[in-house]
Amino acid sequence: MVARMVGVEVEALDEAAAERARARQGRLTKPPGSLGRLEEIAVRLAAIQRREEPLSRGRRITIFAADHGVTDEGVSSYPSEVTGQMLANFAAGGAAINALARVAEADVDVVDVGVGKDKATRNLAREAAMTEDELNIALTIGVERARKASADGVVLAGLGEMGIGNTTAASAMTAALTGVSAQRVTGAGTGLEPRGVRRKIQVVARALTRHRLRPDEPLAILQHLGGREIAALTGFCLEAAAQRLAILVDGFITTAAFAVAWKLQPAVKDYAFFSHRSEEPGHRVLLEFLGGVPLFDLGMRLGEGTGAALAMPVLAAAVEAHNGMATFESAGVSDRDDGGA
Amino acid sequence: MVARMVGVEVEALDEAAAERARARQGRLTKPPGSLGRLEEIAVRLAAIQRREEPLSRGRRITIFAADHGVTDEGVSSYPSEVTGQMLANFAAGGAAINALARVAEADVDVVDVGVGKDKATRNLAREAAMTEDELNIALTIGVERARKASADGVVLAGLGEMGIGNTTAASAMTAALTGVSAQRVTGAGTGLEPRGVRRKIQVVARALTRHRLRPDEPLAILQHLGGREIAALTGFCLEAAAQRLAILVDGFITTAAFAVAWKLQPAVKDYAFFSHRSEEPGHRVLLEFLGGVPLFDLGMRLGEGTGAALAMPVLAAAVEAHNGMATFESAGVSDRDDGGA
Repeated sequence: MVARMVGVEVEALDEAAAERARARQGRLTKPPGSLGRLEEIAVRLAAIQRREEPLSRGRRITIFAADHGVTDEGVSSYPSEVTGQMLANFAAGGAAINALARVAEADVDVVDVGVGKDKATRNLAREAAMTEDELNIALTIGVERARKASADGVVLAGLGEMGIGNTTAASAMTAALTGVSAQRVTGAGTGLEPRGVRRKIQVVARALTRHRLRPDEPLAILQHLGGREIAALTGFCLEAAAQRLAILVDGFITTAAFAVAWKLQPAVKDYAFFSHRSEEPGHRVLLEFLGGVPLFDLGMRLGEGTGAALAMPVLAAAVEAHNGMATFESAGVSDRDDGGA
Repeated sequence: MVARMVGVEVEALDEAAAERARARQGRLTKPPGSLGRLEEIAVRLAAIQRREEPLSRGRRITIFAADHGVTDEGVSSYPSEVTGQMLANFAAGGAAINALARVAEADVDVVDVGVGKDKATRNLAREAAMTEDELNIALTIGVERARKASADGVVLAGLGEMGIGNTTAASAMTAALTGVSAQRVTGAGTGLEPRGVRRKIQVVARALTRHRLRPDEPLAILQHLGGREIAALTGFCLEAAAQRLAILVDGFITTAAFAVAWKLQPAVKDYAFFSHRSEEPGHRVLLEFLGGVPLFDLGMRLGEGTGAALAMPVLAAAVEAHNGMATFESAGVSDRDDGGA
């Protein structure tokens, strides 16, 4: 029974901690509201962590990696072997995520959920990508990895992924979850030419026709159209929220995984920060669907958790200002003439 | 003669270094272009610093502070004394910029260009804010501070400012430089009520009528409508570019100062990164005028250099990826099936 595997209970935010954090913001030596979204971030982290002064140390990007049978349809510019080769690159510290995690002072945890030809999902254009058992195993891997992150003292949990073919899976999931057409949710991925994009759209449309999934069956959508790393991400999101970690959603793939978690437990959204808006058209559709406002849009479309890593210093800055600034009283700075807003 | 004081020669970017950096980007283990603006940032830093592998260490926020006679018109929610009090707060490490600079691993250099009642500019609504001599002194302070930054090994030069009343000066300068109405370039500053904003618009409109400046006389605009810290910032921008430093423009005030530098020497723009879009309506007008696309928009409106500090980790990430990533060849990762873009 799938529901059992994701029977994680996500609690509501701590409103009392949020209230204390808001009051603190009002005493800091700056015009009220002048740090904009940094103030909201600090208050929400306080509500997530149940403390007026939230922590920002304990940063990790967890990358789930897996291969996809749908690459048989010629939907990617890169061969499937690149998934495994990139895992070696992550381990050697040579990938983009390694560089960005160094700047973010985050560690990188790479989890092989099914890399290699014999462990790839089935071709979702022809049959269900996973069996129910396979789905449950992948979800559980994600749940366990979130529990481990929490045990390791992680407070900012960045989502990452690697899997040649996974923008096709995410596009199909997005169409099934939102009802938006294959054409509008399918993009160039790692860099397909227009002809390749047209073929990819047809593959997604064929999968949607074959599986006939309803938007209100998110786990079936994940099983039929997703991938092992995407399912692990869904499990990770649910358990990370249950463990009261802040979730830094990355780009298109991780947002598709997050959307399934959100359909299962809407409260998970209170724990999430949407890092960036990727260039993939399906990501815009998903963010609108979720009502998620990303922190920045720098034209990135790499995945791996690179957007989540880039967002970590923004959260760190929000926390450092919140915890480290002087108050009007302590600094001897005059407050507003009108007594403050 | 004012022109002499800003007779700084800004050179063109190093196109050969940019070309080498672009070629390097093409070899890194990621789909071409997938790091979006991070790639452009790395290439431009290479062109600024004349080296294929640019540096990102050597980070400083230089804050110029001064008082404004125009506060006599009741244009700010805070009393003038706050400028000096905030200088003490900067020195004690209790301000927002101190917190954000710590996260950015940047030092903070605070320069008093005229803080205190007896050193404030004249009321720009009634007379020229500065004499020509006073303007020259302020410009020179900025030039010297940029020279010192370069001598100290700074490569990322963030602009900051403090000066109660300076959004009124920046609004007047923006209207004079762009021809846009006082109404459209004047906002709430540190948090005026709507009635206060209406009064501030009238003050700006009155200043524009009194001084009758043409858009093509940027130094006269700076002298009549600006402030000592704004003039110092203009001098700083010109010399920082001449010293081949990357300039991180902050919010409304620093962008107004930068716009004067740009009118004097358009090449200065090649050295500038626009950190963020502030909530002040005049900032949007100025960014459009300059063709500047900010890195993010987080609803901030604090100044001090907080936006510039928040942008530094983005530049650091761009550099770390550019210099630190493996190439397809070194990592043994297969390149695109089609042989690359």
